[in-house]
Amino acid sequence: MEPTKIILDCDPGHDDAIAILLAGKAPEINLLGITVVAGNQTLDRTAINALQVCQYLGLNVPVYAGCDRPMIREKLTAGDIHGATGLDGPKFAPLDRSIETKHAVQYLIETLMASDGDITLVPTGPLTNIAMAMRLEPKIVPKIHRIVLMGGSFSYGNVSPAAEFNILADADAAHVVFTCGRPITMVGLDVTRKVLCVPDVVDRMAKIDNRAGNLFVDLMRFFNKTQHQVFGWEGGPLHDPVTIASIVAPEVLTTKPMHVEIDHRSIQSYGRTNADVFGYLHKTPNVDVATDIDVDRFWDIVEAGIRNYS
Amino acid sequence: MEPTKIILDCDPGHDDAIAILLAGKAPEINLLGITVVAGNQTLDRTAINALQVCQYLGLNVPVYAGCDRPMIREKLTAGDIHGATGLDGPKFAPLDRSIETKHAVQYLIETLMASDGDITLVPTGPLTNIAMAMRLEPKIVPKIHRIVLMGGSFSYGNVSPAAEFNILADADAAHVVFTCGRPITMVGLDVTRKVLCVPDVVDRMAKIDNRAGNLFVDLMRFFNKTQHQVFGWEGGPLHDPVTIASIVAPEVLTTKPMHVEIDHRSIQSYGRTNADVFGYLHKTPNVDVATDIDVDRFWDIVEAGIRNYS
Amino acid sequence: MEPTKIILDCDPGHDDAIAILLAGKAPEINLLGITVVAGNQTLDRTAINALQVCQYLGLNVPVYAGCDRPMIREKLTAGDIHGATGLDGPKFAPLDRSIETKHAVQYLIETLMASDGDITLVPTGPLTNIAMAMRLEPKIVPKIHRIVLMGGSFSYGNVSPAAEFNILADADAAHVVFTCGRPITMVGLDVTRKVLCVPDVVDRMAKIDNRAGNLFVDLMRFFNKTQHQVFGWEGGPLHDPVTIASIVAPEVLTTKPMHVEIDHRSIQSYGRTNADVFGYLHKTPNVDVATDIDVDRFWDIVEAGIRNYS
Amino acid sequence: MEPTKIILDCDPGHDDAIAILLAGKAPEINLLGITVVAGNQTLDRTAINALQVCQYLGLNVPVYAGCDRPMIREKLTAGDIHGATGLDGPKFAPLDRSIETKHAVQYLIETLMASDGDITLVPTGPLTNIAMAMRLEPKIVPKIHRIVLMGGSFSYGNVSPAAEFNILADADAAHVVFTCGRPITMVGLDVTRKVLCVPDVVDRMAKIDNRAGNLFVDLMRFFNKTQHQVFGWEGGPLHDPVTIASIVAPEVLTTKPMHVEIDHRSIQSYGRTNADVFGYLHKTPNVDVATDIDVDRFWDIVEAGIRNYS
Repeated sequence: MEPTKIILDCDPGHDDAIAILLAGKAPEINLLGITVVAGNQTLDRTAINALQVCQYLGLNVPVYAGCDRPMIREKLTAGDIHGATGLDGPKFAPLDRSIETKHAVQYLIETLMASDGDITLVPTGPLTNIAMAMRLEPKIVPKIHRIVLMGGSFSYGNVSPAAEFNILADADAAHVVFTCGRPITMVGLDVTRKVLCVPDVVDRMAKIDNRAGNLFVDLMRFFNKTQHQVFGWEGGPLHDPVTIASIVAPEVLTTKPMHVEIDHRSIQSYGRTNADVFGYLHKTPNVDVATDIDVDRFWDIVEAGIRNYS
Repeated sequence: MEPTKIILDCDPGHDDAIAILLAGKAPEINLLGITVVAGNQTLDRTAINALQVCQYLGLNVPVYAGCDRPMIREKLTAGDIHGATGLDGPKFAPLDRSIETKHAVQYLIETLMASDGDITLVPTGPLTNIAMAMRLEPKIVPKIHRIVLMGGSFSYGNVSPAAEFNILADADAAHVVFTCGRPITMVGLDVTRKVLCVPDVVDRMAKIDNRAGNLFVDLMRFFNKTQHQVFGWEGGPLHDPVTIASIVAPEVLTTKPMHVEIDHRSIQSYGRTNADVFGYLHKTPNVDVATDIDVDRFWDIVEAGIRNYS
Repeated sequence: MEPTKIILDCDPGHDDAIAILLAGKAPEINLLGITVVAGNQTLDRTAINALQVCQYLGLNVPVYAGCDRPMIREKLTAGDIHGATGLDGPKFAPLDRSIETKHAVQYLIETLMASDGDITLVPTGPLTNIAMAMRLEPKIVPKIHRIVLMGGSFSYGNVSPAAEFNILADADAAHVVFTCGRPITMVGLDVTRKVLCVPDVVDRMAKIDNRAGNLFVDLMRFFNKTQHQVFGWEGGPLHDPVTIASIVAPEVLTTKPMHVEIDHRSIQSYGRTNADVFGYLHKTPNVDVATDIDVDRFWDIVEAGIRNYS
Repeated sequence: MEPTKIILDCDPGHDDAIAILLAGKAPEINLLGITVVAGNQTLDRTAINALQVCQYLGLNVPVYAGCDRPMIREKLTAGDIHGATGLDGPKFAPLDRSIETKHAVQYLIETLMASDGDITLVPTGPLTNIAMAMRLEPKIVPKIHRIVLMGGSFSYGNVSPAAEFNILADADAAHVVFTCGRPITMVGLDVTRKVLCVPDVVDRMAKIDNRAGNLFVDLMRFFNKTQHQVFGWEGGPLHDPVTIASIVAPEVLTTKPMHVEIDHRSIQSYGRTNADVFGYLHKTPNVDVATDIDVDRFWDIVEAGIRNYS
């Protein structure tokens, strides 16, 4: 089988970095490009962080910078969790590669328009770049094979009681994406909260002892420290890599088709992914919502992803 | 220990009827009065239903009719689940008792003002009566010992993706109650969904074979049928009686203090109980939110409550 | 012709005081009672102020205290405009009469239920009392002959760009009243801004030289001072008395039937009276909206109202 | 004095067409380019209409097509007023020129970035193109000299009680533009409603008898017909050309600095331009709001603009 062509749209961010790591050498995936967006940190930082991860891992993937703020609302960043750089923990060498000059939105439009409709978009940050591309050039929409995104929650949020960070950071963009009509898999907090990167997991990956393993360990030790401070957890949820894992091995997720609407007009519940879990509203499902995850299988995929660098 | 004085404010409804049953003869509870409100059915029906249950069980408790519609929004009823009468299932004899002439809101005000501050309010329907009383006579608020209510969800709703029925039916009233400053225990879908009245439970209660047992069985057989049609469950969640069970035996619930805000201004997420599960917002908790329930203990309490009628 | 029976529901307030003055002895009006509500000042103050005005003018009208806060939202008062007492300016003697013991909402319900459907409600403050009565006893609604209220604006607000004070102070109550189905005349800022009580007007009324004239002058001198400070006007708009003037002489107003909705769910535009001026939405008109006023005629009515006390 | 460099961002539409006409040959204006957006009609139609007007008038100005739908909300068009083509009335010859291949948003970004900060943007349609450019390349914002836009109303709307069409059609984009920090002049319904193109005006322009005069007459005869059907007016308001007239002769408008916020989060009042007319909120003004217009002067400018084609 052909590897799945993906563009990873991210805001690294510790868990985004692991997503790059997993996607970078998985035989099941053809990572065409990385686009970055403001989110876990400012655009300047997420761009540098994506480049650092690629350089550290020897990945020759182009990185494009996109939007530095949400479509409509004011900026929201999540610096506390990810440290001052957005990717605190590892020591990176000075960068010897640089960001592409083309705007990420332009790259998305051109790449999708030139494609055979076989590209999967994998957003693991706010959906600003994707939504801006859809509005600037609506003809790209039918060219998108599928969207597998990390974001939302059908139960409760993290940064607000109603909302998960990626959706909260640009719920207007999320509304554009969720109503686009293409197949969407939503990997939300409902499942990512189950893959807690507890010390045992970190120790397991530490044993692999290649560059990818080292990066994983350095990232996760910092990440777990701040997650513990903010949420009281011993091991933080490894949100973003679940998207990549589900492309490598779809059976890792249990999903259910649901009608999902983004609440992008309210103040208090801004960013909630209102998912009709029971089909009570009798509306046509527009999203495959991840409802469960095979946790053991997930960590096996992560381990295999790290071993790909040996 | 003195039994806890309560006023049960309800909208029977099958699970409200079981709440009356449990409260009616529990030695731990002194049921001062029942007030009814529009909710599961119209006020006319919920008033008749409360009287029918009291008459059937030989409970000599006064029943007061309150508000026939929400404070601000249009009426919402839940007739599908509870049948045409709001209490389909049992065969009731013609009523030989009648509703009190005093308005429920007036009864609440007078009773609370005359009290020593030792009355617990137990709302198991929309919060219209309670909130109207609070606004008509704000001096009652410090007289309320505590509020133990069935309603809301910190995860997801039932009648809408965002909201649980009781809160959705009058979220404006819920906002008034949740901001009143008195101790509140919120028994939401997060725990009531765990007490599914499956056929084994119905069979267990059927063996008791007194009037209360018969009522329980007749009610639950109908309730389970409609819950199955709407949600696909084999046994419906016995929402309202959890409030009474938690007064009989507080340890049946695990609760956590949280800051909870009612979203009563949005359209899409109207009625969501936004609960800050992680304390992420650093606001003072205003509600003890039930997060878990000892299911076995709960059914023991229900069985004991039925046996109180033998 | 029989004088029009009215209940004046107000929050004095300088312009409310003039409304009481005009209604108190007009041969066209039978002032059955005065109900007060929190608004321009707290309920304590508006109750005292209503009593003071009645005592000063020798009006033997019962005064009932109603709700001390809005139905749902937090309290909003307009103290700046009306001074510390809510009725700064005149020197009043100590009160020798007192507020009725019955709650204003109860008075409204009982009086309307006992009536032949011939009572006009004249609210010149927030609509809390009226809406609470409608929700506590919906049977009063068909008993209301008509509602003539001061509030709203089809153009722009005063206390916010979107909203006029009376509606902003309890837009939820306003929604209840505006959707009640009875005939409503809305006297909004669109016309009340045209009756500016400039110094010439004050001088004219000063010449009458009876108690009512003195009260008018003392009130208006203070009112104009604060209106000048806040809005830069030489003479403040005499909002509330326009309602009474339009009952004394309906031709003083030009009105147009419009469909009016209260925006009571938004944050930024909370309290806007969205009036379909052009009938663009093709919805059935529910309000006669005052669009113009005969200013000369209005001041003649005010003068006559003052002279009624000679 | 140098003519003012402008880019006209429009959605022709009859009044947009007159704006092109006035801008096309005014010695005070240097019309660099025309960008079109979906609004009065679909993007396909507004592009053709802009080209038709330019060809008819012999204007050699490049026309760029921009966004075919709003940033977030669903599409809204105003076809009834402008007929099936969006520019019904005149008979146009087949087009012998075509739309530029560059996207309007890209044109705006490149032109502004290459400029000396001396370009005025004149939007007379929904603000989608401008806001998309601001979000795609935030560096353009300080390069904008000034924005003179037709849209909004500090009093009441046209297409909804709260909102004017251009803002209603994309209030989210309007929020982006109104918060950009550059000088904005808002020419809203408050003044454009005063320049009614009544039959006398049409007759006056008909006497000029050049191509521009003929175009004016053909457009206005159709426009007045539909305005009469929808609003009952004898002559429709000539909204968009007021922007151009105010650049030709700024004294035609009276303006007042106000703090203006777009209500882009509410449902009922979506698109209202909440302008703090009285400075009551003590916020820094961000918009010069047109409050009055010299109607005679305006028609003189229009006449001169038509005569420029003789």
